[in-house]
Amino acid sequence: MLPDSQSGPRNYIDIILVRPRNPLNIGAVARAMANFGFSHLTVVAPYEPHWREAQSAVGAEDLLQNAKVAATLAEALAHATLVFGTGTLEHRKPEQLVVSLPELAPLLRSKGAHGAQVALVFGPEKHGLTRDDLSFCHRLLTVPTDPRQPSMNLGQAVAVCLYELASRLDQLEVPAASKSPQAMPDSAPGLSTTSSGIDLLAGVIEETMLAAGYSPRSMQAANRHDLRLLLRRLAPGAKDTRRILGLFRRILWRLSRPPAG
Amino acid sequence: MLPDSQSGPRNYIDIILVRPRNPLNIGAVARAMANFGFSHLTVVAPYEPHWREAQSAVGAEDLLQNAKVAATLAEALAHATLVFGTGTLEHRKPEQLVVSLPELAPLLRSKGAHGAQVALVFGPEKHGLTRDDLSFCHRLLTVPTDPRQPSMNLGQAVAVCLYELASRLDQLEVPAASKSPQAMPDSAPGLSTTSSGIDLLAGVIEETMLAAGYSPRSMQAANRHDLRLLLRRLAPGAKDTRRILGLFRRILWRLSRPPAG
Repeated sequence: MLPDSQSGPRNYIDIILVRPRNPLNIGAVARAMANFGFSHLTVVAPYEPHWREAQSAVGAEDLLQNAKVAATLAEALAHATLVFGTGTLEHRKPEQLVVSLPELAPLLRSKGAHGAQVALVFGPEKHGLTRDDLSFCHRLLTVPTDPRQPSMNLGQAVAVCLYELASRLDQLEVPAASKSPQAMPDSAPGLSTTSSGIDLLAGVIEETMLAAGYSPRSMQAANRHDLRLLLRRLAPGAKDTRRILGLFRRILWRLSRPPAG
Repeated sequence: MLPDSQSGPRNYIDIILVRPRNPLNIGAVARAMANFGFSHLTVVAPYEPHWREAQSAVGAEDLLQNAKVAATLAEALAHATLVFGTGTLEHRKPEQLVVSLPELAPLLRSKGAHGAQVALVFGPEKHGLTRDDLSFCHRLLTVPTDPRQPSMNLGQAVAVCLYELASRLDQLEVPAASKSPQAMPDSAPGLSTTSSGIDLLAGVIEETMLAAGYSPRSMQAANRHDLRLLLRRLAPGAKDTRRILGLFRRILWRLSRPPAG
């Protein structure tokens, strides 16, 4: 028996589907969420307009009706503080730390992740999350699959991830943070900075880089990408973020005025 | 990275689908099997004739082509020695021991299950396995789902079960058999009797019950059901099975002759 989904840790976990093509897969995701007691679904830029009527959402019709829609991943993640992008390691040199699914529940129970607003992000059916999508994620979450056939069906991938969390999140004992190499560091209160807070900071820093002539316009996209990853790796706390933001705003203001004398 | 599926414990695990209706689900099952390195699929009395062409078997086309077909569950299980029927506990008073999915890998690593030919049996989409189907199973395997929405999609249920085995069967340490209440008893070499061996024995015992006037014909179906369950619970070893079979054949022969004098 599972505890009520409104009170358990599942309530702090958002499921986010990025540009899903097939409404049947969206419905299957909703069904798996209902099976394992999750309720917060966000769909980013869905391909088909009538996905809310997907017949595959057996027993999860309400969940599908109440799903949020977002135009961009950044918007969907605005309030998240700890974001896992799902994907395989094939054809990819990961730009962030990799978490294998069996390590996820212990990680979420570690001290550093306490109070985090967690999001699990799943990419579109054919090719998964892009490098750009993943730059909004703190960790790359992989399911341990056969290297000869790593690519999973979207509904099955979500089902497997939620089963793992549902069966091992609640009853797990809190591990000693130092024991797990994947545990969030205690010194990372940064995980309480929301994704939108990080993006705001990144925007001001980018503006500063341009204003200071550090970054030519041709490098702007690449630098923005690297900056997003860097800030998520550093994971500054909410207070740190405000402080750094203040500094860069000051610099920007300074740069816009000709030096006195 | 997973070990080669031909050498790992996965090679001793059959996946059996009973009366599946939708070929897309059969294909999705094949895909999940390929994802997690399983290769032995048997389909019992499929509803649609052209299920081998299911488009959903992405990367698992060969597996689907090589799947076996059986007319009955008994036929599909002929060589199995340890059979898990999947289902929920809703509307059901289980007639056999219940195993929750997170307990499955430790159970399969226990001493009593050593060398077993394992089968995982999944029922049709709408209503799952019948009571009759389950009478061929040693254990009822349940996935811990939300009691408000326990019914899973077939492809997702298989994916979750195979993920659990793939991620926890290989690297698990062999637990002390006495530590787990769900471990197979050491005294049950019976698990090396195949399902067809058990059914042969059951047939001879049933014949004897009728010949001896123990069981009226009107009770035959019910008694057969109970006998199947009883023999699987007792789990006689291969040698025991031969001995019991010899005894009942002797009794049958005796019953067919009028007593001397």
